[in-house]
Amino acid sequence: MRATLIHGPRDIRLEDVDDPRIQQPTDAVVRVVAACVCGSDLWPYRGVRRLTAPRRMGHEFVGVVEQVGAEVATVRPGDFVIAPFVLSCGTCAHCRNGITTSCERGGAWGAPDRDGLLIDGGQGEYARVALADGTLVAVPGTPDSAMVRGLLTLSDVMGTGHHAAVSAHVRPGSTVAVVGDGAVGLCGVIAAKRLGAQRIVMFSRHVARQKLAMDFGATDIIDQRGADGVARLTELLGGIGADAVLECVGTKESMQQAIDSNRPGGYVGYVGVPAGGPELPIGQLFSNNINVAGGVAPVRTYLPDLLGEVLDGTIDPGRVFDLELPLSEVAEAYAAMDERRAIKSLIRP
Amino acid sequence: MRATLIHGPRDIRLEDVDDPRIQQPTDAVVRVVAACVCGSDLWPYRGVRRLTAPRRMGHEFVGVVEQVGAEVATVRPGDFVIAPFVLSCGTCAHCRNGITTSCERGGAWGAPDRDGLLIDGGQGEYARVALADGTLVAVPGTPDSAMVRGLLTLSDVMGTGHHAAVSAHVRPGSTVAVVGDGAVGLCGVIAAKRLGAQRIVMFSRHVARQKLAMDFGATDIIDQRGADGVARLTELLGGIGADAVLECVGTKESMQQAIDSNRPGGYVGYVGVPAGGPELPIGQLFSNNINVAGGVAPVRTYLPDLLGEVLDGTIDPGRVFDLELPLSEVAEAYAAMDERRAIKSLIRP
Repeated sequence: MRATLIHGPRDIRLEDVDDPRIQQPTDAVVRVVAACVCGSDLWPYRGVRRLTAPRRMGHEFVGVVEQVGAEVATVRPGDFVIAPFVLSCGTCAHCRNGITTSCERGGAWGAPDRDGLLIDGGQGEYARVALADGTLVAVPGTPDSAMVRGLLTLSDVMGTGHHAAVSAHVRPGSTVAVVGDGAVGLCGVIAAKRLGAQRIVMFSRHVARQKLAMDFGATDIIDQRGADGVARLTELLGGIGADAVLECVGTKESMQQAIDSNRPGGYVGYVGVPAGGPELPIGQLFSNNINVAGGVAPVRTYLPDLLGEVLDGTIDPGRVFDLELPLSEVAEAYAAMDERRAIKSLIRP
Repeated sequence: MRATLIHGPRDIRLEDVDDPRIQQPTDAVVRVVAACVCGSDLWPYRGVRRLTAPRRMGHEFVGVVEQVGAEVATVRPGDFVIAPFVLSCGTCAHCRNGITTSCERGGAWGAPDRDGLLIDGGQGEYARVALADGTLVAVPGTPDSAMVRGLLTLSDVMGTGHHAAVSAHVRPGSTVAVVGDGAVGLCGVIAAKRLGAQRIVMFSRHVARQKLAMDFGATDIIDQRGADGVARLTELLGGIGADAVLECVGTKESMQQAIDSNRPGGYVGYVGVPAGGPELPIGQLFSNNINVAGGVAPVRTYLPDLLGEVLDGTIDPGRVFDLELPLSEVAEAYAAMDERRAIKSLIRP
């Protein structure tokens, strides 16, 4: 089959690799229907994160189950499934606590499992899915092309935006600020709205993203950054920062913007993969009771609730995909996101 | 009157200073009945925090109102009152949000108010209290000597321990670890118990403090630190860290101990004044969804609830005072805490 590998900065290649097959009784093999490029894929693409060897790419996909191992009970061949961006067993203490990303037996797409056997990446034609029962979520019926986009967001960005909002303790009536106008930040707007936020302010300088944010439920846009942006926010919110700030980028600057945008006693919910190791300014946090919550989003835990709302049309996060390409053009899918020509690229094998 | 000043490391002096008087219509003058030395007073005492000039000391006291300004409505001469460790107006947006420590008009004991007029410290015979209505809490009747100890903890350590527990999201059934066996950590045990914690593990190497922690509701003591302490904790808790960790020290080492003791998805509630600027390890926090909440405790907000339980004997935090001295021996009150001969020193003018 064909699968995507990264060889170095801006060096994305589609290559012939071994077809996946069932190797553990808890495995499934899934034919990928749609995959996408993640903002975090851009860290190795841009050379921010160093590679020691070529690596299979893709950790967000949906597809159809082709085969299952002897012990798989919850999905069957023919099922349309969503694959969260981390594998998880569903039964260990951390999974039971809802933190599936800390699963004791879990694994990562494009990396070896605990027995050293490669788990395929999602940006390919097929994938071996380890821990299929804990990891995959089956969708009733066969979704159409538009619905596929919505379901695909549940493998990462919608669940991650939701984690930012949950971690930021968004409540009915909350004032919310969102730092990051990428797909996760935009899904954060959807999440904040469904959790009852009264005011949702998006920091964005990009007209198309501003518009989508407003469609998703943002009430205000601020196109300034730094101290000017914070001054505008506090002006909008009657003199104090936001109750809840969603940090959806992961740089030192974006984290500082988020902290500065939070009112004393508020929560910053952060989900941006820390790139370049932002240090948290403990003195500022302490003095102002700024609480910092979040991390790598346990989207598997949120998937059942959010799935229902995607299926019944209550939320439409699939609109974050503004570029759709065949797998053969996967390199362009990366380039378009890197150059901010696309919010998020969808790839169809 | 006589009041305590610090002139430099380990240089505590009792000096004659001006008697306080009403200077603003929102002032009260309080005769101090009991004051105490705070763990954070030890930072300048030890030279960890530099002084540029001699400074009045003490931010925890209880006493009797002598005089009030024309606009003071909630306390009257003769009232026995508790003074929280930060002054607050009670009416600004931050006070209404319960974060009285971020009060827009608030001030600090031993420092100038917004008009440049000194607010006395608490370790003296009398104190001018600015913003008396927002700051002071009156207690019904005249407490006896034992009750004074309990009430005095509400000016800081009991409310601060409670803030650690609230920030750490202690819930009925939570597993809790407490880092720091000083007065705040011990009060954190009381707070965790009253919030319904099922298991409360105290890190302590000090026999008298271990015993008091058990009396207050701790279920287990760990006398190891670092990786050994964390290993013992996870062994006690069935293989994972604590749901909630109370960080009640403020050093880089204690914060790391707290983070390492937290389970994925748990909360570290921290209230130790950061000394030496611990940086938070963002990569570890992110990967494990360790949430860090807390800061300078808004004890004024918690005071009414906790006051009732001290008055009716439900909780007895006054037991943290294991040394009681006249004001004339205030230097010894510091030395005993510095040398860990006392958990907490009470001073009677």
